[in-house]
Amino acid sequence: MKATILGTISAMPTFRRCLSGTVLERENESFLFDCGEGTQFQFLHARLRRGTLKAIFITHLHGDHFFGLPGFLSTLALNNRDKPLTLWGPRGLKQFMTSVLTCPHPHPMRFLDVQEILPDESRVLIDHSAYQISTAPLRHRVDAFGFRLEEKPRHGTFDSEKADELGIPFGKERGVLKSGQAITLADGRVIEPTSVVGPPIDGKVFAYCTDTVPCQGAVELSREADVLIHEATYADAEASLARERGHSTIRQAATIAKEAGVKKLVATHFSTRYRRPDLKRMHKEGQEVFENLVMAEDLLTIEI
Amino acid sequence: MKATILGTISAMPTFRRCLSGTVLERENESFLFDCGEGTQFQFLHARLRRGTLKAIFITHLHGDHFFGLPGFLSTLALNNRDKPLTLWGPRGLKQFMTSVLTCPHPHPMRFLDVQEILPDESRVLIDHSAYQISTAPLRHRVDAFGFRLEEKPRHGTFDSEKADELGIPFGKERGVLKSGQAITLADGRVIEPTSVVGPPIDGKVFAYCTDTVPCQGAVELSREADVLIHEATYADAEASLARERGHSTIRQAATIAKEAGVKKLVATHFSTRYRRPDLKRMHKEGQEVFENLVMAEDLLTIEI
Repeated sequence: MKATILGTISAMPTFRRCLSGTVLERENESFLFDCGEGTQFQFLHARLRRGTLKAIFITHLHGDHFFGLPGFLSTLALNNRDKPLTLWGPRGLKQFMTSVLTCPHPHPMRFLDVQEILPDESRVLIDHSAYQISTAPLRHRVDAFGFRLEEKPRHGTFDSEKADELGIPFGKERGVLKSGQAITLADGRVIEPTSVVGPPIDGKVFAYCTDTVPCQGAVELSREADVLIHEATYADAEASLARERGHSTIRQAATIAKEAGVKKLVATHFSTRYRRPDLKRMHKEGQEVFENLVMAEDLLTIEI
Repeated sequence: MKATILGTISAMPTFRRCLSGTVLERENESFLFDCGEGTQFQFLHARLRRGTLKAIFITHLHGDHFFGLPGFLSTLALNNRDKPLTLWGPRGLKQFMTSVLTCPHPHPMRFLDVQEILPDESRVLIDHSAYQISTAPLRHRVDAFGFRLEEKPRHGTFDSEKADELGIPFGKERGVLKSGQAITLADGRVIEPTSVVGPPIDGKVFAYCTDTVPCQGAVELSREADVLIHEATYADAEASLARERGHSTIRQAATIAKEAGVKKLVATHFSTRYRRPDLKRMHKEGQEVFENLVMAEDLLTIEI
């Protein structure tokens, strides 16, 4: 998988930083998490393809996380999209989209299916044969949700040389073993899959948590994640402001990552008050708690 | 006055071109014409000040001309704007803004006054002591309006040397002459203002016409304009497509400029189908009709 961070600033854009949006590419599909204004511009700058997009997940209905939707979806419509696209987000998203798509002229988007997540709902949104995408509530000033994409374990590597030695014919029998079932050969020997197939390969886990104060929902979504993208709007010094505004400090984001046993933390959604040296200091603050911490930049890509 | 063109492409952004938006600065005020997605980003890139903005004019409710409003206005609100701002546009704009500002959480914007222009309405929107801003209907697939800012003539230059010769005292008397009225001196002589004040200085005229087929409204708004910004979505070869989609070709835009006695034409709102060499050819096509034609680029500034 590959994550591309489109924007890294909170509230309003700056000269160098755009608003929230992260694309996760996985094989021939991709997913967009948040869609701040300018997301369609950043898609161009990151040279991402819109066609592979399968679903959009909106964390919460503050403008910096979803005001890019009307333009982004209009562009899909203008490109004659017919492949279905599901838009997930909190209550109110349907009403917003209906207003936009009918005001004052109808803009039909038959490819679009808007699905609302109920307050405090924790559940699997997409259950694919190769992965699951689930959501859980975060704690912000308004209904907010984090998301987790977890790949299912894949079958272990098939040892062709060993299979040859055991005289397993090519074709169906090998397929059955790969799928985890035993076979009986013509000579009566029973071959267990473990003889020729390695142990299952764990899938990767990606988690996306913004905007939120440190909360249990974020820990659960991030459990053992290979990459966690977590908001860190403020430095430690602004901890009380962070609490008041429903945000996390960098130290709090790092603590969530540590508690959840995350492998890599990518901090984002910085307050516009911080300049580059401030972010360097915040990086150090976070690393005091969690070493493998990256401070996001616009168009940063992360291999997962 | 100075115009800054923020975006020059129609429908959807490209790598190099943003969506419609033009800022007109005049003394300590500024006006925004159209507000496509990304307008607030282009304000940053053009290093324009949001604080001087007095009014926003939306030509029509196609997304590429107004989907930047929610983000732009939110940023003004986050910057604690309290100075009034009037947003003018076609019917439906109030409903759109209400949906955005209440969905799902109320976003109070007390500084904002939304005013709708009725279909086919031609009228003065702002009558300032130094200028007038008026609107007239254009012809597009939906209600669309063009705009004209016309400075009022200013008093001519006061000739102080001449006034000294005539023995006109400093103070009130000179003010009266400057305002265009005669005075009677203590010795009984009557001084006409023309003796010491030059002829009135004509104001400048700026016109903005997009999206539209060639129409009388555009000619009237552009009459004797110093600068006309007019859409030229298509090349001549696509004239029938232009007609069908409610747009103008470059030759048609040039013909409007010629007919209206415009001094300079700035063509914009190009179809995404055209690359740089195509635009060069379009430039030539337009210049066959109207010589002083500029093909707009993002962030182009024009002194008026």
